[in-house]
Amino acid sequence: MGSILVVGSVAFDSVKTPFGKVDEILGGSATYFSVASSYFAPVRVVAVVGKDFGDKHVEVFRKHSIDIEGLERIEGRTFRWKGEYGYDLNEARTLDTQLNVFETFKPLIPESYRSSEYVFLGNIDPELQLSVLNQIKRPRIVACDTMNFWIKGKPEAVKKTIQHVDILVINDAETRMLADEPNLVRAASKIMAMGPKTLIVKRGEYGVLMFNGKSIFGAPAFPLEEVFDPTGAGDSFAGGFMGALAHAGDVNERIFRRCIIFGSVMASFNVEQFSLNRLTNLTRGEIDERFRQFKALTHFEEF
Amino acid sequence: MGSILVVGSVAFDSVKTPFGKVDEILGGSATYFSVASSYFAPVRVVAVVGKDFGDKHVEVFRKHSIDIEGLERIEGRTFRWKGEYGYDLNEARTLDTQLNVFETFKPLIPESYRSSEYVFLGNIDPELQLSVLNQIKRPRIVACDTMNFWIKGKPEAVKKTIQHVDILVINDAETRMLADEPNLVRAASKIMAMGPKTLIVKRGEYGVLMFNGKSIFGAPAFPLEEVFDPTGAGDSFAGGFMGALAHAGDVNERIFRRCIIFGSVMASFNVEQFSLNRLTNLTRGEIDERFRQFKALTHFEEF
Repeated sequence: MGSILVVGSVAFDSVKTPFGKVDEILGGSATYFSVASSYFAPVRVVAVVGKDFGDKHVEVFRKHSIDIEGLERIEGRTFRWKGEYGYDLNEARTLDTQLNVFETFKPLIPESYRSSEYVFLGNIDPELQLSVLNQIKRPRIVACDTMNFWIKGKPEAVKKTIQHVDILVINDAETRMLADEPNLVRAASKIMAMGPKTLIVKRGEYGVLMFNGKSIFGAPAFPLEEVFDPTGAGDSFAGGFMGALAHAGDVNERIFRRCIIFGSVMASFNVEQFSLNRLTNLTRGEIDERFRQFKALTHFEEF
Repeated sequence: MGSILVVGSVAFDSVKTPFGKVDEILGGSATYFSVASSYFAPVRVVAVVGKDFGDKHVEVFRKHSIDIEGLERIEGRTFRWKGEYGYDLNEARTLDTQLNVFETFKPLIPESYRSSEYVFLGNIDPELQLSVLNQIKRPRIVACDTMNFWIKGKPEAVKKTIQHVDILVINDAETRMLADEPNLVRAASKIMAMGPKTLIVKRGEYGVLMFNGKSIFGAPAFPLEEVFDPTGAGDSFAGGFMGALAHAGDVNERIFRRCIIFGSVMASFNVEQFSLNRLTNLTRGEIDERFRQFKALTHFEEF
């Protein structure tokens, strides 16, 4: 079983949805990713926090045996994000972003992390993503997220980074924007020509499509009666996916498809409660049971 | 194999998409439905057209052995719809609607149609849908479509009609509106309590969810490189679904799921060209081949 390195944000989120609100609770891409993937494989985090990051926050990572040697704690305040969702839980409205210690973040990869086999570049500045890759020896699989902010603001840096990436994990609007092509299938082809052998397109409550140039895999999201807070769903998906991949230890289409389902499983748990409340209280049995429910959800017979 | 009765609209559509435009070409819910279902089972149409409905239009139905005894041709002009799609092909912007002969439409079911086993009530006034049901002997399966216009304008009539319906086939916004509930899973439960044992939720390019109170089935739409015109996709889906159901001659979850895929297959062909151009030129082999491609698209193995 390979170990996973994730670089991304650790944040304090204030989130309002039609079902409640929370203030300054632990969040950030690296947090969601690492907790989700920790159910499958060893995880190492590279991120930065401020002096307001306390023992109870450290404890969340510790509880899941996540290696936080690469979690820098520096003078200043931790990154803060404030957002709101309407009844259409697919899109957040950002109310406030305070970069704080994240503003000057230069990820430094600890020596003990440099031989990580599986690397996930969370949604940060594409130049920083590339600098991370340059510090790692010979990763087996590199996956990467990005967003419209970087695609619009630093398109060349995004394209340079994804040349070195095996799997790009972005949403459908980002796919169309990066390829400058409205048709998703053609957009996927254009993006795979930029470097990634595999493109995973996240579609929120509608599920996921995976492209690899030879075949397409499509899976719906798990239909839930209670969706409280979609924050972190994409990173939980990526964490479940990469975790299952590292656990499998091999790479082929059959394994990729199963990992997509494990990613979808982790995302479905994540949205059931605010913050990491559900994700930090799971058993492997619950994860496997929901995997089987995904099979029941999607299965049909040949005629 | 049972035979199918469909009541709905036959129209002349003018459609503009980013990929081209067509003027006054054959369309309407009953047209798309009947052509799609004709590949699977005998179909009978109840609709009204004007004197401008000519031999070349009749020929489309004839070519597919669709029974048009119930297609009334009266003084006046055929129903016209004009719409436009942007690059987001999920939603049409209606530019003009001329009801014409449809304004006074009172569906009269020919004697030879009254023992039809499978009935599809296309998206027309819910009071007319009910009047159709009252003229039919003992249908085995009744499926029904409706839309926001009727849910808002005649909510009581919609609820009265769907009491007598086995399968409701509507889109996700209509599901939420009819149930007055933003969560789709809970909305589905509320709607099934109104009468339908099965609810099929169409989600455009994102596929379909089917609820029956015991399980949920989810299928993505077929990812296509060329989507020219989404007009009629929902009715092609319903036609493929009901056609396959009538062809199967039995009703259970296993069959329902396969029929959902056949519906998705017909919808995927329909959007590849304008109007009925693709749907009227299919072979059963092409249909079965795309069914197998759907299996390849969605299949994953247990872990």
